[in-house]
Amino acid sequence: MNIYLDNAATTKPCEAAMSAVFDSMLENYGNPSSLHKIGLNAENDINEARKAVAAALVCDPKLLTFTSGATEANNTVIFGAAKKYGRRRKKIVVSGIEHPSVAEPIKILEETGDYTVVRVMPDRSGAIDAEDFIKAVDDDTFLVSCMLVNNETGAINPVKKIFSYVKRTFPECITHCDAVQGFMKIPIKSADLMADAIVVSAHKVYALKGVGALFVKNGIRIPPLIYGGGQENRFRSGTEAVPLITGFGAAVRYLMPTMKTAYSNAEIICNYLVKSLSKLNFVKINSNLENHSPYILNFSVEGIRSEIMLHFLESKDIYVSSGSACSKGGHSSVLTAMGIPDKIADSAIRVSISRGTTEGDINALVNALREGYETLAKR
Amino acid sequence: MNIYLDNAATTKPCEAAMSAVFDSMLENYGNPSSLHKIGLNAENDINEARKAVAAALVCDPKLLTFTSGATEANNTVIFGAAKKYGRRRKKIVVSGIEHPSVAEPIKILEETGDYTVVRVMPDRSGAIDAEDFIKAVDDDTFLVSCMLVNNETGAINPVKKIFSYVKRTFPECITHCDAVQGFMKIPIKSADLMADAIVVSAHKVYALKGVGALFVKNGIRIPPLIYGGGQENRFRSGTEAVPLITGFGAAVRYLMPTMKTAYSNAEIICNYLVKSLSKLNFVKINSNLENHSPYILNFSVEGIRSEIMLHFLESKDIYVSSGSACSKGGHSSVLTAMGIPDKIADSAIRVSISRGTTEGDINALVNALREGYETLAKR
Repeated sequence: MNIYLDNAATTKPCEAAMSAVFDSMLENYGNPSSLHKIGLNAENDINEARKAVAAALVCDPKLLTFTSGATEANNTVIFGAAKKYGRRRKKIVVSGIEHPSVAEPIKILEETGDYTVVRVMPDRSGAIDAEDFIKAVDDDTFLVSCMLVNNETGAINPVKKIFSYVKRTFPECITHCDAVQGFMKIPIKSADLMADAIVVSAHKVYALKGVGALFVKNGIRIPPLIYGGGQENRFRSGTEAVPLITGFGAAVRYLMPTMKTAYSNAEIICNYLVKSLSKLNFVKINSNLENHSPYILNFSVEGIRSEIMLHFLESKDIYVSSGSACSKGGHSSVLTAMGIPDKIADSAIRVSISRGTTEGDINALVNALREGYETLAKR
Repeated sequence: MNIYLDNAATTKPCEAAMSAVFDSMLENYGNPSSLHKIGLNAENDINEARKAVAAALVCDPKLLTFTSGATEANNTVIFGAAKKYGRRRKKIVVSGIEHPSVAEPIKILEETGDYTVVRVMPDRSGAIDAEDFIKAVDDDTFLVSCMLVNNETGAINPVKKIFSYVKRTFPECITHCDAVQGFMKIPIKSADLMADAIVVSAHKVYALKGVGALFVKNGIRIPPLIYGGGQENRFRSGTEAVPLITGFGAAVRYLMPTMKTAYSNAEIICNYLVKSLSKLNFVKINSNLENHSPYILNFSVEGIRSEIMLHFLESKDIYVSSGSACSKGGHSSVLTAMGIPDKIADSAIRVSISRGTTEGDINALVNALREGYETLAKR
């Protein structure tokens, strides 16, 4: 039996999602743009899913666009904001610990030479200091971007505090939040967050890869990234991925009522993991436990490179990650940004738990870590 | 029992595709970027699918990129070609009957004022005349785009002839072909076509919506449209839609061995439809039957607006389209481009058949058209 503890990379689809995908493939296979009933049924499926995801973000479904995933959604916001709002103002302020789907498009903009980018580094806790961030924003800034929960450490950033200040002081500045690792885990109210754009992903919440959603606040005019038949209210062209969207909606509907309980369970499991790891004197926890998502824990195993330990755990059918799964190899820029020495960063393990993770799973992990350390440290 | 004759809009997924999607959701749910076995299994699934689609296009799998669909792929080629090859040369030559996923991004480029666009109109047959197209291309042209099979009429364009001339005379000009309606219906050999970029879609070939593929010839340097974790050989970032990609591969593998037989069957069905319609003196066939894909037939029903007839047929559980399904409402620009008067274009019906369409389906359609005409013409 697999012990899958890499849920921040991707989750196993839940039955609700799989069953919705299957029904959609089998029954409502029409093109939502078709004028007949089979098309209309597919369109209705999309609208139901949109309502479900909008309810989870506490926003008007009309303001929600389905995309092929969070990466496309983040690219849409960043390139679109530059096109629309980056003509006179030229500065972007962004956390230094963003996911590549935010960091890379911003780097591309920077490389054009047309924009200045300020990257705000986290403190040792792994979170962004709101004051540090706010100090960097000025009236030349057209875009600020700060993720809600860091994907490698679980650090929760003070997004609401940062964005509230920014929108109050520079109302024309676009505030963008990649909320992928927070969505369906910690409550997100679009209005509270003061975000003009919020990005979420389906495959991190027990639905399928290939679909995400983008909230854009009323009045914000981001141009499309992809043009064509004018689907998604002319904001995102291309035949809608109906089965994926339907599955996304089903997963969100399934998760919604038990979000709080799931969070409490995650806390129990995470605390149990922390307590268990504290007994291993060769383990150093990298995540800061204050202001932290209990769904992610990052720690290092003294002297054993991440990949080596990862493969040892794999041999025991335990699956974890060495930092972010979203791009293979390379060094964790997040841990480095936190001031963690390379040697420790090189031995980092990310455990990301699911709703189904049990204390038994944690016991198996901890035993395997001990065995792994004893076996591998001798080599 | 539904008679679904709107297969150019989208197809019902085949069992091979659905079963592959299901297995992928259930078993190989890992993130292909994860370093462990569950991720690797997902990556292997993608590679198998890539081989299958590449075999169908007779190209090196390395040159094939999975995208969220044909719309994204067409946008990638057009905006990317402009960025990379549209600095000194400024002209785009494109057929006047492209799908919106090609026509719209080109219009966006035109609206910047930086580019000149020449749209080559079809002759009355609905196809592009190769000489007309070639005449428009000159040494200021950096991109030519011509679809293989028109989605509204089934007209097959002389793409090979056009692109061969272009690449011989202006080797630096990028040749782009939206082959969505030809893929898995008529044979496409990437090398033969002389296309630098070829775009295909999964949901038109009995797989799921939300995935397509883009062939880009070796040596052609199109920059990405979407940046992030560097997936798909750094050309298309974002966690791969593994279940969709796997389903796409499975559908292609299933269809490949019987492509010729299916084509012959489609010809038989299409000819039977033409013959049956010829007995209805209120029907005028808009498709040209020479050089035409038998999978699509466009005709008009005298004096009855498309939508009215479409809904009448729907009441008999027969599903057709009024032109293209890919954007709701509006006038068919393709029929207009063919010189068909508005009144006739307004009553156009597109029948697009599947591998499963029978003569019985055609009989039911023709009977319903007759009944519809008799009922509706009196109003």
